[in-house]
Amino acid sequence: MGRIICAGLGPGAPDLMSRRAERAVRGASHVAYFRKKGRKGQARQIVEGMIDEGAIELAMEYPVTTEIPFDSPEYITQLARFYDDWAARLTELARSHDVVVLCEGDPFFYGSFMHLYTRLRGTVEIEVIPGITGMTGCWTATGTPITWGDDVLTVLMGTMPEDEMVTRMAASDALVVMKTGRNLPKVKRALARAGRLDEAWLVERGTMKGERIVRLCETGEADCPYFAIVLVHGQGRRPELPARPLVEVSL
Amino acid sequence: MGRIICAGLGPGAPDLMSRRAERAVRGASHVAYFRKKGRKGQARQIVEGMIDEGAIELAMEYPVTTEIPFDSPEYITQLARFYDDWAARLTELARSHDVVVLCEGDPFFYGSFMHLYTRLRGTVEIEVIPGITGMTGCWTATGTPITWGDDVLTVLMGTMPEDEMVTRMAASDALVVMKTGRNLPKVKRALARAGRLDEAWLVERGTMKGERIVRLCETGEADCPYFAIVLVHGQGRRPELPARPLVEVSL
Repeated sequence: MGRIICAGLGPGAPDLMSRRAERAVRGASHVAYFRKKGRKGQARQIVEGMIDEGAIELAMEYPVTTEIPFDSPEYITQLARFYDDWAARLTELARSHDVVVLCEGDPFFYGSFMHLYTRLRGTVEIEVIPGITGMTGCWTATGTPITWGDDVLTVLMGTMPEDEMVTRMAASDALVVMKTGRNLPKVKRALARAGRLDEAWLVERGTMKGERIVRLCETGEADCPYFAIVLVHGQGRRPELPARPLVEVSL
Repeated sequence: MGRIICAGLGPGAPDLMSRRAERAVRGASHVAYFRKKGRKGQARQIVEGMIDEGAIELAMEYPVTTEIPFDSPEYITQLARFYDDWAARLTELARSHDVVVLCEGDPFFYGSFMHLYTRLRGTVEIEVIPGITGMTGCWTATGTPITWGDDVLTVLMGTMPEDEMVTRMAASDALVVMKTGRNLPKVKRALARAGRLDEAWLVERGTMKGERIVRLCETGEADCPYFAIVLVHGQGRRPELPARPLVEVSL
């Protein structure tokens, strides 16, 4: 019996991968990874030149991306069938081989792997190798600590309703906003209403080629890069100081 | 002119260090690290066997730990002088050599390095190598994703006043509580009041020898390990579902 090994690859720079993940990738006879149709795939890109020539590659291509709304029943059904099919194929393969599944960042932190993981768990042996998260790569790129002292850090998604976003942004010391893309204008408005826009940074492709770090307030309305994270650094909260208010801010 | 290179070493297992950090450590002529008096030091322990025999080691020993209260003027003064002295020594050394400073986890995420960083910045060239955070090692050890879908993650410190902790614990999907130790009874009470105690895990020494993962509700009152993190996993928030309330919960 083989195993499924999910290797967290880190934020993008190949040498920020762990030695454990690298060993798994270089030794793999079967390598699987998600990608959009017609793309190479971000995870596959990171391990370029590391996969054995004789290894079998399994590109798990998403059946849909933005063609239909992500909350429509059709989208949900198609995605569920896609994950079911690949879970079945990987289980079958793992009867005779180890299969390495590539995952950007850390597999257990908003990773796509967990859609397979919930289906594979209990049917096959699984090893998960942690990785440096994409957000860690981004805050390192800014050259400023994200949290120190007793700072509270909140990680939230750009998909969140604006009013809720404002409240949470006002209540936290440090902030990470993921899934920005076309939500970016909303994220900017929410930060402005929470009084935090001047402190916010946009980091695109942190640690990767084409890395870009700008103050969010200096970006234009049409500037909505897909692989971007918004950061607000903590100020080193002292335990004896009063907390930021947690009640609803005036909207 | 040399540089200061702060190498994030990850959560504890040596092979979870990045290749970039490993290269810096193995090639270093000068290696500095914090430690308590009379201890080997956690960061130094991780790189055991990797440091060149001819390298010069600089153990930066904290002048005080728990002998005097951490918020007393004396404690603050002694610590500030300690960081000032080491910042001056490292700057002097960096005139002629690269100096590698070891840091557990990720240097910019609640790392002790930032006390040096704020002092060194602008006077000497500094490179920061990100690492897998300790909390990532801990949630990987539990075998369950910490966040998926649109979960909100809150990272907070066990030093926080109990009432504030209750409110934040009730308002977040996923939770990480650091600096537990003797704050653990308070953390447990706060989780119980927020209705989250049954979901909470205590992870001690995640990815390291002596790793221990237990349900927090099953730990005794006297059980306050120092290197422990408390985790509550997210449930995969769907964007269309109502959020957890952010207003004050009844206390």
